[in-house]
Amino acid sequence: MILDIIDKKRLGKELSYKELYTIFNGYLNGDVADYQMSSLLMAICINGMTDEEIFALTKIFIDSGDVLEFADIPGVKVDKHSTGGIGDKTTFVVVPIVASLGIPVIKMCGRGLGYTGGTIDKIESIKGYKVDLSEKEIIKQVHEIGAVITGQTADLVPMDKKIYALRDVTSTVSSIPLIASSIMSKKIADGADKILIDIKVGKGALLKTKEDAKELENLMKKIGKIYDKEVRCIISDMDTPLGYAIGNSLEVLEAIDVLKGKEKDNNFYDLCIKIATEMVSMGLNISNEEAVVKVLESIESKKAYNKFLEIVEYQKGDIKSITVSNNSYKVKANKSGVLKKIDALEIGKLSLSLGAGKVDIDDTIDYTVGVKLNKLVDERVKKGDVLAIIYVNKPITDIKIDKIFTIE
Amino acid sequence: MILDIIDKKRLGKELSYKELYTIFNGYLNGDVADYQMSSLLMAICINGMTDEEIFALTKIFIDSGDVLEFADIPGVKVDKHSTGGIGDKTTFVVVPIVASLGIPVIKMCGRGLGYTGGTIDKIESIKGYKVDLSEKEIIKQVHEIGAVITGQTADLVPMDKKIYALRDVTSTVSSIPLIASSIMSKKIADGADKILIDIKVGKGALLKTKEDAKELENLMKKIGKIYDKEVRCIISDMDTPLGYAIGNSLEVLEAIDVLKGKEKDNNFYDLCIKIATEMVSMGLNISNEEAVVKVLESIESKKAYNKFLEIVEYQKGDIKSITVSNNSYKVKANKSGVLKKIDALEIGKLSLSLGAGKVDIDDTIDYTVGVKLNKLVDERVKKGDVLAIIYVNKPITDIKIDKIFTIE
Repeated sequence: MILDIIDKKRLGKELSYKELYTIFNGYLNGDVADYQMSSLLMAICINGMTDEEIFALTKIFIDSGDVLEFADIPGVKVDKHSTGGIGDKTTFVVVPIVASLGIPVIKMCGRGLGYTGGTIDKIESIKGYKVDLSEKEIIKQVHEIGAVITGQTADLVPMDKKIYALRDVTSTVSSIPLIASSIMSKKIADGADKILIDIKVGKGALLKTKEDAKELENLMKKIGKIYDKEVRCIISDMDTPLGYAIGNSLEVLEAIDVLKGKEKDNNFYDLCIKIATEMVSMGLNISNEEAVVKVLESIESKKAYNKFLEIVEYQKGDIKSITVSNNSYKVKANKSGVLKKIDALEIGKLSLSLGAGKVDIDDTIDYTVGVKLNKLVDERVKKGDVLAIIYVNKPITDIKIDKIFTIE
Repeated sequence: MILDIIDKKRLGKELSYKELYTIFNGYLNGDVADYQMSSLLMAICINGMTDEEIFALTKIFIDSGDVLEFADIPGVKVDKHSTGGIGDKTTFVVVPIVASLGIPVIKMCGRGLGYTGGTIDKIESIKGYKVDLSEKEIIKQVHEIGAVITGQTADLVPMDKKIYALRDVTSTVSSIPLIASSIMSKKIADGADKILIDIKVGKGALLKTKEDAKELENLMKKIGKIYDKEVRCIISDMDTPLGYAIGNSLEVLEAIDVLKGKEKDNNFYDLCIKIATEMVSMGLNISNEEAVVKVLESIESKKAYNKFLEIVEYQKGDIKSITVSNNSYKVKANKSGVLKKIDALEIGKLSLSLGAGKVDIDDTIDYTVGVKLNKLVDERVKKGDVLAIIYVNKPITDIKIDKIFTIE
């Protein structure tokens, strides 16, 4: 039976709801082996899935765990999700902005995966910050201060957790139907009313082309329609890291700079404004033109910054505890010219190798290390200019400067 | 590194010898997990392999174990292999014929797999028959009586054993490049000079179309050329079982009937003559027309039959020990007409369910059960005629007569 199902997908045929249910639930229950699921996942990667199959799989994912409901929280609850990028700390800027405008936000975040840092790992660089709130605690906090940034509660889409871990070690991550089911099942189980998805495209992202991103966008919107949730997508570049900072503490500090109005005019700031605008437009049911005015005002007035401090304090974080390693060294330009490229993927690998993420499951994360860029793409640099400062806590030998920075 | 290799094949790109070596040897050594290998195998199934990849993989398979050499045995050593069918006992007829004509045959056989019975399982229905000869014993026996039918010596292509077991449980069996590498690596390691391959096509076979069979034939011939081994192929039908008997003892008894000249004019007899003719043509370097005369004469003169008895006796088998269950019942036609179809796959499943093969790894084989057909395809039958006798040793409930026999 299980073999017949795998075989059908190998031949590129459509699987029924019942067949998908049998094999995916069998996997969750331990009746289907890892090696069987991975061969099915590879067949799905190569042969694709029909819309009907994707809808069925999303439902099976959602049904595998709890579905949160925040019906007694007033207002349109807006959620956001990013498909994962290098230096992506938009959550820390966007959630306070949106909440400061009276829109309730319950943001459940994940840990780092591969070269990509996790939002939960990043916020843990604030000592004491609680990331494992219960459903009850979440509801209380949203009622009182309008926003929460926490980890996923334990039993939300357990099937996605198991499947994602397997995809990660079997080269079956980059399948658009699987990505769509994975994201949408979590967002629907999260209990939000409207959802903004930031789809990353480029060297440092899962998706490499705009066409793939567009396909994912259409799929997620179709799934959203079935569950009566408005879905909007932003397709954003991930050839280059977002902003200046890569690494846990460094990224939180950069987000604070944006909230304080100290940092503008770069791709990170621009993306924060874009995402917040879409979320505010959905949450207040107003146009993007009206929304962006409110977003900018929230930053200028420091309302957003104060909301961030309020969230951190409520979740027992000590904002003054954020520290960066005392050991650092400078990477300098070896020639003059224009900084044409900063390779997101290579920076991600470097940051991981410094200890900012886990290579093995038992590794501990070093919150104080990372990379702080000093120049951004398209800037003119002179030989000897500092391109970046690398914060370290252990000897590092093999930094591929020429792979990261391209000066022409 | 491993993930990059899997990813490359997922995208349909060609893997180098080094990449194939890394992942396949890694799997044999336990460094690559089952679930990673199965996702690669599925990608190979769907995206295929180039000839260069297939040659590389075959070499990696061969190099994973010992390669036998029988240089001091005089004469051209001819081997045969079948891709597996229902009721296939040609080995027991063909090996004695070929050996009786002075051509040395070292036939190493396998166990049953899925619905297909294994030649080694079948011959073990002769009590005492030794199937685990050492290389030394094989050489001695071939020197003395010119033929041996035995199991594989332990360390021949161990990689194929491990990969095959995984393919069997992950729906990655029907890949022509994988089938070609698997068969040819074993045949080349077996040490034969010339090889005849019987490629089965049809409902009860791995390959479903003549085109696939032709593709496999071409591939295996190309591989043979590299190792300087002549390869000939016969493409034979496997919609219908071979001959009358399916099940271990029953099949050996039917082979003996053919060797005694008692059974002719059916697809099993025809195939035996065809295979033996090609093997004799290769072994004596004569035309097929000359060879077939010798083959028929070997049966008529009982030389082949006596050679079979000689092999069994030499390998300590007691030919009189073969028994069939005393419990049997008759399957009768429920209408009159022409017997249009006997479904090989369904008969294979039935025989397996009776206990003639293993469903689970711990099952023991019942040598005395099986199916003896009483009518063959295209015969006219009357309502109430006996179509088959089923030999059983345990209660059976669910025999799908209408799925097996089609009368029109």
